[in-house]
Amino acid sequence: MALTTPVERDRVATATPTLARVAIAGATGYAGQELVRILARHPRVTLTAAMSSGATAAPRPLPALARIWDGSVQPLDVDRLTRDAEVIFLALPEGAAAELAPTLLERGLRVIDLSGAFRIRSDADRQRWYPATAALPEGTVYGLTEGHQDEIRRARLVSNPGCYPTAALLALEPLHRAALLTGPVVVDAKSGVSGAGKTPSERTHFSENHGSVAAYAVFQHRHTAEIEQELGVPVTFVPHLVPLDRGILETIYGSLVPGTTEQQVADAFTAAYADAPFVRLTGGSLPEIKHVAHTNFCDIGWKVDPERNRVVLIAIIDNLLKGAAGSAVQNLNVMLGIDERTGLL
Amino acid sequence: MALTTPVERDRVATATPTLARVAIAGATGYAGQELVRILARHPRVTLTAAMSSGATAAPRPLPALARIWDGSVQPLDVDRLTRDAEVIFLALPEGAAAELAPTLLERGLRVIDLSGAFRIRSDADRQRWYPATAALPEGTVYGLTEGHQDEIRRARLVSNPGCYPTAALLALEPLHRAALLTGPVVVDAKSGVSGAGKTPSERTHFSENHGSVAAYAVFQHRHTAEIEQELGVPVTFVPHLVPLDRGILETIYGSLVPGTTEQQVADAFTAAYADAPFVRLTGGSLPEIKHVAHTNFCDIGWKVDPERNRVVLIAIIDNLLKGAAGSAVQNLNVMLGIDERTGLL
Amino acid sequence: MALTTPVERDRVATATPTLARVAIAGATGYAGQELVRILARHPRVTLTAAMSSGATAAPRPLPALARIWDGSVQPLDVDRLTRDAEVIFLALPEGAAAELAPTLLERGLRVIDLSGAFRIRSDADRQRWYPATAALPEGTVYGLTEGHQDEIRRARLVSNPGCYPTAALLALEPLHRAALLTGPVVVDAKSGVSGAGKTPSERTHFSENHGSVAAYAVFQHRHTAEIEQELGVPVTFVPHLVPLDRGILETIYGSLVPGTTEQQVADAFTAAYADAPFVRLTGGSLPEIKHVAHTNFCDIGWKVDPERNRVVLIAIIDNLLKGAAGSAVQNLNVMLGIDERTGLL
Amino acid sequence: MALTTPVERDRVATATPTLARVAIAGATGYAGQELVRILARHPRVTLTAAMSSGATAAPRPLPALARIWDGSVQPLDVDRLTRDAEVIFLALPEGAAAELAPTLLERGLRVIDLSGAFRIRSDADRQRWYPATAALPEGTVYGLTEGHQDEIRRARLVSNPGCYPTAALLALEPLHRAALLTGPVVVDAKSGVSGAGKTPSERTHFSENHGSVAAYAVFQHRHTAEIEQELGVPVTFVPHLVPLDRGILETIYGSLVPGTTEQQVADAFTAAYADAPFVRLTGGSLPEIKHVAHTNFCDIGWKVDPERNRVVLIAIIDNLLKGAAGSAVQNLNVMLGIDERTGLL
Repeated sequence: MALTTPVERDRVATATPTLARVAIAGATGYAGQELVRILARHPRVTLTAAMSSGATAAPRPLPALARIWDGSVQPLDVDRLTRDAEVIFLALPEGAAAELAPTLLERGLRVIDLSGAFRIRSDADRQRWYPATAALPEGTVYGLTEGHQDEIRRARLVSNPGCYPTAALLALEPLHRAALLTGPVVVDAKSGVSGAGKTPSERTHFSENHGSVAAYAVFQHRHTAEIEQELGVPVTFVPHLVPLDRGILETIYGSLVPGTTEQQVADAFTAAYADAPFVRLTGGSLPEIKHVAHTNFCDIGWKVDPERNRVVLIAIIDNLLKGAAGSAVQNLNVMLGIDERTGLL
Repeated sequence: MALTTPVERDRVATATPTLARVAIAGATGYAGQELVRILARHPRVTLTAAMSSGATAAPRPLPALARIWDGSVQPLDVDRLTRDAEVIFLALPEGAAAELAPTLLERGLRVIDLSGAFRIRSDADRQRWYPATAALPEGTVYGLTEGHQDEIRRARLVSNPGCYPTAALLALEPLHRAALLTGPVVVDAKSGVSGAGKTPSERTHFSENHGSVAAYAVFQHRHTAEIEQELGVPVTFVPHLVPLDRGILETIYGSLVPGTTEQQVADAFTAAYADAPFVRLTGGSLPEIKHVAHTNFCDIGWKVDPERNRVVLIAIIDNLLKGAAGSAVQNLNVMLGIDERTGLL
Repeated sequence: MALTTPVERDRVATATPTLARVAIAGATGYAGQELVRILARHPRVTLTAAMSSGATAAPRPLPALARIWDGSVQPLDVDRLTRDAEVIFLALPEGAAAELAPTLLERGLRVIDLSGAFRIRSDADRQRWYPATAALPEGTVYGLTEGHQDEIRRARLVSNPGCYPTAALLALEPLHRAALLTGPVVVDAKSGVSGAGKTPSERTHFSENHGSVAAYAVFQHRHTAEIEQELGVPVTFVPHLVPLDRGILETIYGSLVPGTTEQQVADAFTAAYADAPFVRLTGGSLPEIKHVAHTNFCDIGWKVDPERNRVVLIAIIDNLLKGAAGSAVQNLNVMLGIDERTGLL
Repeated sequence: MALTTPVERDRVATATPTLARVAIAGATGYAGQELVRILARHPRVTLTAAMSSGATAAPRPLPALARIWDGSVQPLDVDRLTRDAEVIFLALPEGAAAELAPTLLERGLRVIDLSGAFRIRSDADRQRWYPATAALPEGTVYGLTEGHQDEIRRARLVSNPGCYPTAALLALEPLHRAALLTGPVVVDAKSGVSGAGKTPSERTHFSENHGSVAAYAVFQHRHTAEIEQELGVPVTFVPHLVPLDRGILETIYGSLVPGTTEQQVADAFTAAYADAPFVRLTGGSLPEIKHVAHTNFCDIGWKVDPERNRVVLIAIIDNLLKGAAGSAVQNLNVMLGIDERTGLL
């Protein structure tokens, strides 16, 4: 058997399709490696380069991906990055992304940025939370795929949502648009530690997290601005690190317009996500992180207290997939005009 | 060295004190074993019996406690349980506690009950949540130690608080009493799995919890009634199982009376707990579960958003100690008129 | 977008291939669900039925697999199981497998059995470890894929290897065949708790495993017989449960024929696995469980102490994939004469 | 209640005893903090100073120990360290310990060193594994408490054993001394991550350990030399990091002299540890890490295969207590001539 031959993945006969040429800047972080994993197996993509901004000058393999992707991660070089590609994924620190994206756009490439650099539209808010970003380039679209496919299809720069906002917005937008919510909301998020990235620190030291739970960045987390921008209502957002690796569960507390029934809540969700392949509604059977780990799904459940007009929503995602690399590829699929699920199911 | 000799524990010379004679019904559950562990080393207590209501008829040791307590757990027998004791700890299922406690009181014993059987004073609410309990016996006191020492000292039956209410009430009562809070509160609790007890189930199966987080009993948990009874304001309470063994972290969201300052919040806490040996205030440096695991402490921190008059409180306890066996012994110390910390620090 | 349309998985144009019709008996256990997950996406397979021997009579979905497989698990019924299928996977308790497999073979079906019922060839040993199995049917093959493709291609009944033997044999066979080993070996295995199955018990209770490690079945585990049968040398095998969900790491201690060099060890491995798509050799850079979790790979590393002629091998697999469902599908691919990697990479 | 008053710890009336004056150099690492925790509550000790060699110049509290020890950790200063103390605990990196210990001995102080600096007696071996240590000072004793109380009582410098050797030697010495073992032994150790210390690194990053197991330092760990020195037989030792915080389980494989019975093995252990308060023998009921976490116990179990003359021993300790701070205080108690258990049970 020739281990270098691509393996058959689909039962449907197709004429050999045109392959999109994509490259990755930032291929060694946790989200970056997931990008490599997905794109190397994506039936409509050729991965032209995977680069890293890290200090090491020498090309190096990704051993955990051996046999899936046997290429080498190269040191970041803009000319080589752009040479053969049409679409560039940026999985870099926001400062590097803020600097690099305009150059790529000028060269006529399309960009999907996984950092926060281009998420905030208000200049004042962006100044506060992402000071490295001078301005939003023309053609920038906030890339929460669900419900925004038309804009994403035409976007030059897709600013991929943050992990916490992804779950919060997918849970809150249907109720908000159906005008069932009233007043401020509370988003209490529990995240696996991979959300804190790959750089060792006291915060991510094993012995500090095992057997523990910790809230952080209370009233200070910039994802609050992102959720409020998209939703338009005040949000109290508190993230916590819980002792697991992958996954986010958000418990969202809201007030319903008096008289709202559980059925109306269910209808709002069903209508919103009838055609969304990666949103699964579980109703009163609340979802748990293990259901979505290592997938691109967002599962959403809810409970209504009709006496007090309270609603509790539970939304879960894998922070590295639907919260980062997975939704980025979902956006790529939309940009390419192909089935959203390609390479992700 | 004679391994059966008691070991020296204190540097302070005392005349050999009178020892309180106490017994445990329910010594093999997680909280029950912690009771044995604490009471066997308690310098002012003689443990006269440790019994279990489980099926096994034969006495059996607790191997994990060997060298700390080398007795045998006996099958539950009321006559033997009460023969030599003055105070009985009940760490039984609530139905068994509801049935047994009145008998013990009739025999003139004092009782500390760790179940929920006697926590709810309203007949209607108790009927709903604890239908096995016909009535609260005279002399029943809700046993949140802090601030209630006078009633506990005279109590016949101390109904030990639930684990979730302990953390919630210790965090909320000072602000509530200082009239700094307004409107309903949200209590989002993250609990280690030992809180679900020792009986195997799908809910407590390792593979179902590892790498996962799950909300449960939304709008249906009876600890809500307990918190609301003590606090007198509406509470939305959602507990979650997180993948660790011991400890609870509660994130509590409230609205402050407009104009409330962070200093007023701090002052309310400082005043409330100046003399409380097991409440540690950490202010804006938020506490984490690992700080209190295997201790009887409750650590409380807080953040204030003065623009929006929001407060977020973080309260942590070890669910088996301050949330169960530890606070029960703290109550015993109060009942005996000795230093609250005895046997617990 | 029609969510019921199959998603494109491969870039290579193929005429619509003939699909193999396969069914699963035992689809709700951990390995069974992995089988459903893999086979539902397998480009050369139609899943004709997924059945469960459990008590519930009603068909039921598998919520965690929604959108990947939206069928229902049916109560086990042999006639319906065999009606449309050519190959049956058995992921049942060994007693049920021992009873069912002969019937399926008589009806002319091919069988891949994930239980231990048909692994042991010696009647005496099988009598001891698997007394429910009267005899090995004709056409039974021990299904460690690597190196046994020819027999598996023609097999009627493939007896899929145990999880522990899979890693042990893949690590030991190359050195054994190259005659580099001498004397008995020690296999110290560390397994995630999913290996203990889905039935709640004290052994698999979260609070008993979190923060702990436990050896079990010392000198009494039937996988010892399986390893010794295949290898032909005495093995001391001790399995341990470690607090993680998926994955096995085996540390294997052996003595090398005096004078054996590290290069000879490396050469033996390289020669053995030149064409094996799921065995990755890491040499002196020892592999860790996280590298293979959720994959069908077996990674193998080694260290040699030339002074003392000692070798330490590290072999890792995902116990539910390469240790169960993954290798079963790998065997299916061999039986069908298609690329071993199909549906697995 | 005055929170600064010492709490009563013992029921036995004693004349106020003379308190030993002890100080700690290295009070902020994991083992150092455990030392502070134990010594602050020790009824026969006054903790005169707790110092840290870390960069910070300012004194700082240990918040997790508030109410147990409310002192401040001071920057390391030899004159202040030695001013009021009789015994100094060193919980420093070995280089710092190698340099500091001789000075302390010259000033007439007794020293208990938790590093490896003074464990190896052979100059050649020490040169290889601990090159910073020029020579063993006179009066140095290897401090495995059990069975060595006489030497420790008179020692000037007690070199506390490594965590891995502690469990290995306690398990192997009784069989070795009884001449029941033959040939080399294999020690396969599984350690919690706190054993790797408090400094963040990729090796101790949460996401690298959660859900994983990794062997390290195969044939290269200096604890091998320590075990072989004390035991006098060749040992193959492989340590592993498992995803838990505290505790070590060692699985030890040995060959018994032909004809050895299980009873002889049991007798050897019983005789060896009749008077050892911290060694608990569990026989064929194998111990698990959770039984000893947060205690100073070492639990030992065993299984014998009489057909093949094989023995498997399981030994468990808490690496920070019996493997470090606990045994160090046990040694202090021996040096002071008081009950070994004081402050530790």
